[in-house]
Amino acid sequence: MQAMGFESFERILGGVCAPEGFLASGVSCGIKGDGLLDLALVYTEKPAAAAGVYTTNSMKAAPVVFSSERLSRGTARAVVVNSGIANSMTGRRGARDAEVMAAAVESALDIPEGQALVASTGRIGEYLPMEKIEKGIQAAVQDLNPGGNTDAVKAIMTTDTYPKELAAEMEIGGRVVRLGAMAKGPGMIHPNMATMIAVITTDIDIDVETMRNWLGRAVEWSFNRISVDGDMSTNDTVFMMANGAAFPGGYEMSGEEADLFFETLCWLTGSLAVALVKDGEGATKLVRVVVNGAIDDAEAVLVARAIGNSNLVKCAFHGGLPAWGRIAAAVGSSGVPVSTENFSVVIGECEVFSHGVILEFDAAEVESAVNRDEVEITVDIGRGGGSAYFMTTDLSPEYVEFNAQDKS
Amino acid sequence: MQAMGFESFERILGGVCAPEGFLASGVSCGIKGDGLLDLALVYTEKPAAAAGVYTTNSMKAAPVVFSSERLSRGTARAVVVNSGIANSMTGRRGARDAEVMAAAVESALDIPEGQALVASTGRIGEYLPMEKIEKGIQAAVQDLNPGGNTDAVKAIMTTDTYPKELAAEMEIGGRVVRLGAMAKGPGMIHPNMATMIAVITTDIDIDVETMRNWLGRAVEWSFNRISVDGDMSTNDTVFMMANGAAFPGGYEMSGEEADLFFETLCWLTGSLAVALVKDGEGATKLVRVVVNGAIDDAEAVLVARAIGNSNLVKCAFHGGLPAWGRIAAAVGSSGVPVSTENFSVVIGECEVFSHGVILEFDAAEVESAVNRDEVEITVDIGRGGGSAYFMTTDLSPEYVEFNAQDKS
Repeated sequence: MQAMGFESFERILGGVCAPEGFLASGVSCGIKGDGLLDLALVYTEKPAAAAGVYTTNSMKAAPVVFSSERLSRGTARAVVVNSGIANSMTGRRGARDAEVMAAAVESALDIPEGQALVASTGRIGEYLPMEKIEKGIQAAVQDLNPGGNTDAVKAIMTTDTYPKELAAEMEIGGRVVRLGAMAKGPGMIHPNMATMIAVITTDIDIDVETMRNWLGRAVEWSFNRISVDGDMSTNDTVFMMANGAAFPGGYEMSGEEADLFFETLCWLTGSLAVALVKDGEGATKLVRVVVNGAIDDAEAVLVARAIGNSNLVKCAFHGGLPAWGRIAAAVGSSGVPVSTENFSVVIGECEVFSHGVILEFDAAEVESAVNRDEVEITVDIGRGGGSAYFMTTDLSPEYVEFNAQDKS
Repeated sequence: MQAMGFESFERILGGVCAPEGFLASGVSCGIKGDGLLDLALVYTEKPAAAAGVYTTNSMKAAPVVFSSERLSRGTARAVVVNSGIANSMTGRRGARDAEVMAAAVESALDIPEGQALVASTGRIGEYLPMEKIEKGIQAAVQDLNPGGNTDAVKAIMTTDTYPKELAAEMEIGGRVVRLGAMAKGPGMIHPNMATMIAVITTDIDIDVETMRNWLGRAVEWSFNRISVDGDMSTNDTVFMMANGAAFPGGYEMSGEEADLFFETLCWLTGSLAVALVKDGEGATKLVRVVVNGAIDDAEAVLVARAIGNSNLVKCAFHGGLPAWGRIAAAVGSSGVPVSTENFSVVIGECEVFSHGVILEFDAAEVESAVNRDEVEITVDIGRGGGSAYFMTTDLSPEYVEFNAQDKS
């Protein structure tokens, strides 16, 4: 299976363990109860360059603060993730707990201090059961294995209905290079990555500055362009580690090779982002919003988010209503000064409004377009050449029922 | 019945017809069908100073553009409002239709050109049936009467479940002065007045500059502090007319009298705003959010809106969950740099989090507080002396079901 336009990589199995030199495990340490897996470990046998992208929420959870400070040095050997409790809004005690988690991993793996990263996801406002966590870390280290990706990805799930992992390989410099990833989402998925955790691994040889740049752009075009409910969590984290195992002697990629690798990374993050949206709480439809004609891409993102986060628009899609008027109202409330005279809306393939005029469209065709599993909305705001896309879901009664229960 | 703190006005009946010299009517012109009232007229026998406040949505509906231009002169004799179709996204044809509505009112009432204001509410993206509207205007003019407020307020309703009108009288300068109002809401109620129409009448003698100032502040502290679904409509309009009928010889209010009048105006708009929120689509609870400790009031409003518009917070209240972590996450996503170390949350009377520490609170007390019909949330962000309040609702499955049907 290949994504369109990328002819030079292949999807493979193995998730975060697909690249050479990566081991993983997932264990049950008793946070979730019922023997559910709730602690994941990813480990690279060789030292790795590492980078992270984090939530922009100002109430950053303890592990986010801890790991982002730690990653200023740009290297890591291990990532530990627990699910069930987010270690968020936990003050000094939470900060200490994140430190203790990292130290326990370093000690059990016998790696230098400063080489373990930490992420947590789950309920906000509860302290971690550190005794269970520390025992879990011991077990996870014991359990590390080259097929541990399948347990690891289950151990990071919260409200996800299925595990999400992906891997790809390509040929670079005469060698097979691999990229792998796992992600967990739903529950506060939002632009700026709300409550998502992702770990990306690769065996390519790459300097940390380039990796930071590529990871930042790949996240911006994927996890930052999705929304289930418009809220932004305190814990969102994407880690990436590159251990260079594919090139024992080091390797300098050509521009073309670098492009291939970056495109594969974008395919990986983009595909996971789609999977996260589709598995959004109560979601029954994927809605793809494209905005053209903005002054610049940033302005287009603003407009696309206003559409993608509008409850009225999302309810309309749930009901299969071709409510382009709600789309127009959402665009108008984005803060971008759009004039109806320069505005047009296309639903599916059907233009319904153009430059101040309600078009005579085939109502059956438009209704059929909004009743598909994947709905396409394209608007043009007639201000310039900027464009953006955004992915969201419908808003269903099930979403509300789900979130009116005590889950996080 | 009196609001607390205001001892000098009394609530009376009569809505927009309560002030001297105002007549009103509401007729069925056939937009809604089934004989439902859908065209309202409010008329002042004497010329009136007039002001308006409008949606900030950039896709302003035709009647909003028309009336706001017209009101630059600051006088009016009549307001016509139709419900069912919003005359929004209707381009040049819609602009002409708004003009024709005003001209029809002026002609039928035999008042000078430029003295009729127009508002529309209902579905976006449909043209008005002008023949029906013009006949309706004739009938509404015939029907004008001093008790017409009860029909007029019904004629502006869309998704409201009951009509909302209010009036008050007070003594100023030895005379009885009256204020009256009608409002329609639900469906895209939001900060900045989304899809609400209100008409306020008074027989006080007031210059238009003072009225604009007072109306702007009264709207900011009432209709701009409520949200049902976070969307902002293309049609929101508040009109106010003051015909001076209480003071045939003119009158200059003292500072104290002006304060009384302004406070009564704020009571009127505030009370209507609460009624609009409570009648929000699918709403089962009123949630009052208070934010203290902001750098200034504007910053506090940002934070209060972030809480009030969070779907996760609103779902939690629907389910009666004391999910203060979701409140914290919403605050953190407001764009205001709040530190957990300076942050506190009170639910009802119970402090649950303070300055980085999760408090040992009485869970039963907190649950009881979030299960009331009116939930009180107070947060302090520890940055300064600014504060704000905001009113919102829970988010219910009924809201989604309602908005997944073809209503506007």
